[in-house]
Order: sequence, then C-alpha cells, then structure tokens
Amino acid sequence: MTYLKNTWYVAAWGDEVSREPLGRKLLDQDIVLYRREDGDVVAIGNRCPHRFAPLSMGKLQGDTIECPYHGLRFNGHGACVLNPNGDGDIPPKAKVPAYRVEERHDLVWFWGGDPEQADPALIPDLSYVTDPKTRTVTGHIHVDAAYELYIDNLIDLSHAQFVHNDQLGVDNYEDAQLEVKQADEQVDVIITIPNANMPPAIRGITGEDNKRGNFVLAAHWQIPSIVTNHIQFLDADTNEALHESFGSHLLTPETETTAHYFYGLTRKHRLDDKDVDNAVRAWHLKGFTEQDKPVIEAAARMMGDETDPLAMGPAIIQTDGANVRARRILKKRIKLELEQESQA
Amino acid sequence: MTYLKNTWYVAAWGDEVSREPLGRKLLDQDIVLYRREDGDVVAIGNRCPHRFAPLSMGKLQGDTIECPYHGLRFNGHGACVLNPNGDGDIPPKAKVPAYRVEERHDLVWFWGGDPEQADPALIPDLSYVTDPKTRTVTGHIHVDAAYELYIDNLIDLSHAQFVHNDQLGVDNYEDAQLEVKQADEQVDVIITIPNANMPPAIRGITGEDNKRGNFVLAAHWQIPSIVTNHIQFLDADTNEALHESFGSHLLTPETETTAHYFYGLTRKHRLDDKDVDNAVRAWHLKGFTEQDKPVIEAAARMMGDETDPLAMGPAIIQTDGANVRARRILKKRIKLELEQESQA
Amino acid sequence: MTYLKNTWYVAAWGDEVSREPLGRKLLDQDIVLYRREDGDVVAIGNRCPHRFAPLSMGKLQGDTIECPYHGLRFNGHGACVLNPNGDGDIPPKAKVPAYRVEERHDLVWFWGGDPEQADPALIPDLSYVTDPKTRTVTGHIHVDAAYELYIDNLIDLSHAQFVHNDQLGVDNYEDAQLEVKQADEQVDVIITIPNANMPPAIRGITGEDNKRGNFVLAAHWQIPSIVTNHIQFLDADTNEALHESFGSHLLTPETETTAHYFYGLTRKHRLDDKDVDNAVRAWHLKGFTEQDKPVIEAAARMMGDETDPLAMGPAIIQTDGANVRARRILKKRIKLELEQESQA
Repeated sequence: MTYLKNTWYVAAWGDEVSREPLGRKLLDQDIVLYRREDGDVVAIGNRCPHRFAPLSMGKLQGDTIECPYHGLRFNGHGACVLNPNGDGDIPPKAKVPAYRVEERHDLVWFWGGDPEQADPALIPDLSYVTDPKTRTVTGHIHVDAAYELYIDNLIDLSHAQFVHNDQLGVDNYEDAQLEVKQADEQVDVIITIPNANMPPAIRGITGEDNKRGNFVLAAHWQIPSIVTNHIQFLDADTNEALHESFGSHLLTPETETTAHYFYGLTRKHRLDDKDVDNAVRAWHLKGFTEQDKPVIEAAARMMGDETDPLAMGPAIIQTDGANVRARRILKKRIKLELEQESQA
Repeated sequence: MTYLKNTWYVAAWGDEVSREPLGRKLLDQDIVLYRREDGDVVAIGNRCPHRFAPLSMGKLQGDTIECPYHGLRFNGHGACVLNPNGDGDIPPKAKVPAYRVEERHDLVWFWGGDPEQADPALIPDLSYVTDPKTRTVTGHIHVDAAYELYIDNLIDLSHAQFVHNDQLGVDNYEDAQLEVKQADEQVDVIITIPNANMPPAIRGITGEDNKRGNFVLAAHWQIPSIVTNHIQFLDADTNEALHESFGSHLLTPETETTAHYFYGLTRKHRLDDKDVDNAVRAWHLKGFTEQDKPVIEAAARMMGDETDPLAMGPAIIQTDGANVRARRILKKRIKLELEQESQA
Repeated sequence: MTYLKNTWYVAAWGDEVSREPLGRKLLDQDIVLYRREDGDVVAIGNRCPHRFAPLSMGKLQGDTIECPYHGLRFNGHGACVLNPNGDGDIPPKAKVPAYRVEERHDLVWFWGGDPEQADPALIPDLSYVTDPKTRTVTGHIHVDAAYELYIDNLIDLSHAQFVHNDQLGVDNYEDAQLEVKQADEQVDVIITIPNANMPPAIRGITGEDNKRGNFVLAAHWQIPSIVTNHIQFLDADTNEALHESFGSHLLTPETETTAHYFYGLTRKHRLDDKDVDNAVRAWHLKGFTEQDKPVIEAAARMMGDETDPLAMGPAIIQTDGANVRARRILKKRIKLELEQESQA
C-alpha cells in the first residue's frame, strides 16, 4: 500500500504559514509554503532548479521567494521572475512545481496529484474548528511511522483504555459495546461504556469526582487519512452531556514510512479560558508525544520494512473492524488511481 | 560466518530480569524477558501479533504480560490468554514464540534454536560464580561489532599489554611465553610472563608495590562464545598466588554485526568489601567501555561489511593461534547445522 | 563523475600534523598522518593488517607507529618492523600502503594514485601562504557534500551577494560585470562591481564607512579542486587597493559524497595583529560553517544520490560559465584516467 495522490491533504495549520518560508516534505515532495502580502498561501517546489538549494532557507521579497544561494526569485506559480546575476537571462528550466492549495477552517489543504483534478468541494468539512461557538487548540508533530499506522490507532479507540489509561481509562472496560458502520467511503466506529466512572482527564475539566455515566467515544474516518472524533461523557439518568469534545486527527504522508500528524481539540465551553488551553496543550504533549508516538513508532520498527500490518498475517480482533474497512476502501482507491495512471 | 543456533547463549545476568519487562534482541529475534510471580524466568517473543507493539513496553499482570497498545495478555508459553476488547475472542494467530530458558549460576541462558533439542546438561559450567567462597561483580554492555570480534579479543590476551597497558602492562613483555591447547571443541591459551613487575591493577589490590613474580593469563573458550579466564600473579620463589581472579566474558549475537557482552569478575578475597566491588566496577568501565570497546568497534568499522577477519587476508601471528582454532571449530559447527537444516 | 586519482590533493594544513597521529579518510582510503622525529610527514594506511584496528588510535614510538590493539609497529614506508607478541615473527602480509606526501607552503599534499607517477613539480603554487610579507589564518572543516559542489560554490562568486550578504553584500549588485577565462586546464572568473559601497566585512577592517569603489572578486580554479581567490576593493579615482586578500579554498574528497574543506585567508597588512587573526577566524566560522555549509549540504540532500548537478537537468545561468568549464575539464581528465587504468 502506498498513498492516494488525487485527494486533499493537510499541509499545515493556518497559523504555521506566515511570511517566514516553511519547508515541508509532503508525499515525498519538497514543498515550501508562505503567505503572499495579501495573506494568500503559496505552495511551490522547495528545490531551486539552478543549484538545488532549498528555497525555504531564503527570504520573501514581496510575493516572491528568493533563493538563499544565488538570489533567483520565484513567484507563487513557481516561475522564476528574476535572475539577479550576470546577464540576467532566465532560462526556460528555471521553474518549480506549483501546488493547488486552499485555506479552509484554519487548515491549509493541498492537492497531492494532478492540479487539474483538484476540486475544492471535496475538502473535508471541519467547519466546527472555526465555528465562533467553539475554541480549538492545535498542534503538529512529525512521526517515524507510516501514516496508515496512525489511522489504525485513531479509528480503534480501544487503545485509549491502555495507551492513555492514566487519562481516559475506566474501571469497567469489559462492559464496552462496539459499533462499526460503513457508508459510502466513510467509516464510523462508536464505543459505548455504560455506567463508567468518569475518566481522569474529564474529571480534571468538570471537577466532578465520583460521578458515573455513559462514556461514548465515536470516531469517523474519511479518505484519505482524515479522522474526527467526538468524545462524550453522558449523565446516566438524563443522558445529558457532562462533557464533550471534538478531535481532529489529520495525517499526511511525508514519505512511505514517515508522516505529519496534525491534531486539534475543539471545545464548546470556557472558550476564552487560557488555563483550559494550556491544559489541552499539556494533554496533547502527554497523549500524543509521550504515549501514542513511542508505541506506534516502536510497532513500526518491529514491522521492519513493511508498512501494512495486514500483509504480515496479524491476529485480527473485533475492534479492528473499522481499520480493516478503512484500509480496504483506501487500497481500492489507490489501486484504481494506479490503473488510471497506467492507462493515461 | 554467522552464528550457531542450537546452543545455549546468555540472555541476561539474573539480576537484570525482574518484574519489569526487559526487551532484548538476541540472535536477530525480539524477545521480552520477565519473572513470573514464583520467580521463574519467562522469555517470549516481544512483538505483539495483533499490531506489533513491543510487549516490553507493557506491564505484568500476574504471570502474564499485557500489550501496551490494546491490552492483549500473553502467558509464559506465548499464548494469548485475554483479549479485553470487543467480543473478547482470541484468534488462533494471537501467539508469540516461547523460548527455552534456564537460570543457572546467576545467568539466564536461552536456547537459540529448536526448543526440542535444548539440553540443560549442555549449559557451560560457570559454578564458580555462585560458589559461596567467591564474590562476583557483573555487567552488560551493547557493542557495535560482531560477537566473533570479541571472541578474538578475549582469547588473545596479548591485547592486555597494549589496550589495557595502564592496568595490566608489564615491563618485560618480550619474555612472555605462549601455550595454546585444543581439546575436543574447546581451546585454551596461556600466557606466562616470568619475573614480571606486578601490573598496576594488581598493585592496587594487593598493596604490594615493588614485588616481581610470574604473571599468568589463561583463557578458555568453548562453544559458542563463552570465554572464561584465570589471571594469576605468582610469587617468584614460592609460586604462591599473590593475586588471582576469574573472569567471565560471555557474548551473545544481537544481529550479525552487533552483540551483547556480559562480563563478570569473580574473586576469592575480601568478599564483603564494597570498596573492592566499586574498584572492580571502575575497572570494568575503564577496561571494557573505554578501552576494548572503542578499539574493537573501530576495527569493525574498518572492516566494512565483513565480519570475519580471516576472510580479509590478514597478517596472522603466533598469538592468533587460539582464535584461529576457535573460529575453525565454530565454522565447522555452523556449517554442519546449516547442512542439517537444509536436509530437514 | 567521481574523482581524479593521479593528482596532488591536500591531506592537511601543516600544523594539523604532529607527533599525535591523525587519522583521516581521503579518497575513500583510511590514512594516518604523523611527523617523524626529524619533522618529516609520514602518511600510511591507517588499518592494521593484523586485526584491522586504526593505527591512529595508537601512539608513536620513535619514527614508527604502534598499533593500539596488539602493539605491532609500522614505519613510514608502511612496513611492520616489530611484532612484540609470541615468537615475534613478522608475516609478509604485515604491511600497509605508503603514500607519497610533500609538505609545501604550510600544506601537506598527498598523491592520490600510483606513487610512481607522483611529480612534486605538479604541486599547485600557493607560495603566497608562506611569503614572509603575508600572514595566513587557516582552518579545516568536514562537509557532508560532494567536493564538486564546493568547487561550484567557490568559482561562482555571485553566491557572496546572497549567502554572505551580511559580510560581502553591495547595494548595486545589478551593475556587476562578469568575465570567465579558460586557459589550458585552468579557469578564471572575475566579477567587477564598479562604484560599489564598501561591503561590511571590508569596512570592519579598513574602518572607512562611506567610501565607494570598485569591488573585484577574482577566483582561479585548477585541477583537481584547488581554488584561490583575490578579493580587492579599489579606490574609484586612483584604482589603488583600499583592501585586498587572498583566499585558499582546497577541497579533498573523503568519499564520493563527503569532503574535507581546507581554507586559508592571506593578508598583507597588520601581519602580527592577533585581533585581525581573530576577526578572520570569526569570519571563517560565520561564512564557512554557518553560511556556506548549511546551504551546500542542504542542496546535496535535495540532490539525493546524485552528486553532479549537470546530470539533473538544471537551469544554467551565465554565472555558471566557470563551474561548467571546470567540471568539463575534470570529467575529461577522469575519463582519460579510467581509460588508462582499463588498458593497464
């Protein structure tokens, strides 16, 4: 399995892109991202066609980026618009690829394949991120594991009981009920633990210590590697949400064996409370950098050169239902794309 | 040359294995070691068959080990005995290899090949380690060199005069006499330096500064990579031992190019003296980590992809007699094992 | 493209070689350099032929070097002259290669190929380095880039305006005039910027702030990777040099993808002023380690396995005239050498 090209991937959270060039490898391609003076995001090839220095080490000159090595300038379409040296001639080869990017819901999306096929209507709807009634804390880490291994992690929320036990563990996990649904090219998985104790992370936010209720973890996957989740703790009597949050977990392959992990936690309460922001950041650091990442990267090392667990004859259990379905959909789409490429 | 499989190797010193799981790669296999509640040592495959996380990152639950990722539990036979997720079904593939281990003389030995062939009677006799009249200080380091390069080092004690000159050097090394003996599949080498000054390390222990005597360094190699030595400094007149120690130098291949080095120094004097323990530890750190390891690892780098010096057309000198014999025996056994495998 | 063998390369600045052995990989060969008691430089193979330890970890014994592992001693011709072990026999294989070296103008040169062909008359003339009317500050860094990428950098001084803008930038770079000359197997490139402001680095030395003049940067390349330059700032009216310096930029391949960069700055003023020495060292650190090296190494990474930019279909601009010519000459000579080798 490799990755789908003709689809939208996250290149960055909006606040990562500024008037300082940002070099990032995405789908094995070296890309530089920056904002034009009007604020629009530009994504072009990062490798100068002259002597191959990374443009991201250079600086912006108006809407162009200047190569750090010999000063050639490129515009947002990847065309060289200035050669400051010698006779100043600009040779035809002096150009870099330009990528289709769209900024939406505080995310910079880029189209991984043929720009002609890029359709902004296909960008996943993460409008809750920019809903004025919510507040979202975001982050980005680089991981030494194939992006698919992160999808596996994210749409099998049973890992929360073990990897994040200190934050999300409950004392009656054996009562958990699992539901997996597939519709079109999307997969939903819902774990419900009735009459659970309130997990530590939620106690920290609600301040309620001994309350029991229904703990509901729902994850939604869509092509290519977009996972959103909805975590709720419901009053056992009234079914009223004592707590809920919305997670964005967005993976972009860097290479076949490494990935970018963009995450966000969206809440509907205490929107302006910096203490909550900081608590969420602390949880992200703990949960994603200190808990998920070491386990997933260690599993990736254990897999050696293979990136697809299903190719290794694994033990498959019921809670793998969602990730097995997601991989199947993705593989089918990748196969189709490769067939179309070979026909073209 | 590669390594013999159907033989006993050291997996760990006994005190390295506890109720905290210990992950260790041995003979290219990822293994986790831990103690059951009754103290017996368990060694099973470290790679969870579900999503390939290392079990050594998990924790013990009674006599089982729980995977850190999704909580599957495995017993000392490598069988999955609990799947806490979903319907709880345990698929047939949910198992890991189990290794034959024996704890003897404070060492945990494991059989590298077919468990059916494992015969505890073949475990090398290192009973002096647990003799109540002795005291042994032990250690373990990881080395970036093929295990055979360490055998070469250990059964050619002439290196002591140069690599460990500050500790074991004498002023009349030119008088050294060499004896090499081979019996069955074992090799002995004895270097005797008559009327030598007492080497610095021994002066430090005996407190005798100007005494001369006979310095005798004897090393014994047996299959696969077990070296024991006996260092003596004898009174020139009475031939009484002014000092003696027994060294255990036990190599286990991690991969073809890296190894585990387990070492111990056994003494018969001042058994309860912590100062002597600390002096031995300081000597181990100096001699093994700061002197042998850099030289051997540098030689390994100089050899590039080759792990067998004899394949590189080296200059062979008389003091190589022991290591050439040992390699010849080992190669013959490995060849035989490969032939048996190909016939099976 | 690989490298020429039968030619003189720099092995070290003279003050790098002493009575402490210096291990250095040059043209993929492991070499140890040291001075004999009479001060002459020795360069022999660094890999002991016995057990392959690096001789450079050993110590000098008179004019010989003693292997750190088992004490074999080798003389400046690479012959083993002492085996201190066992019967002391010296086997025929106990020898290492000896390299032709010449010390001239404070540089240790070595011949990369067949010693029989080594002709000291071919050593490039860098006599200005030891001219008593000059003072030279020198240095050496290791770079993770093919040596050719450094030649490209050094004989295209247009990079100074961008990579070293804070030190050598001018405000009318668009007025620069370029001249490239090829004679025999040598290439010269001269950039003249008439009526330029005095660049910051030169202002720092001359103390003249607002003076404008003609800024002339001249570089000279010769086989194999010897670049010297002459930087001048001339009074616009009198054409008198307000400042000039002579740079030595000497590359030696370590491997096909890594190199040694030896540099020196020679001046004719304030010869005994340690403050100027220190200012030059600060400039070297800034310019070569913090500015050139990151850009060139990043470009090398961007090029992946390729070391020749011309093989990658680059955009070629007028200022590449010198480096394209130099590469063409070098390729021709390498091709010729390979043909001669295959005929021999």
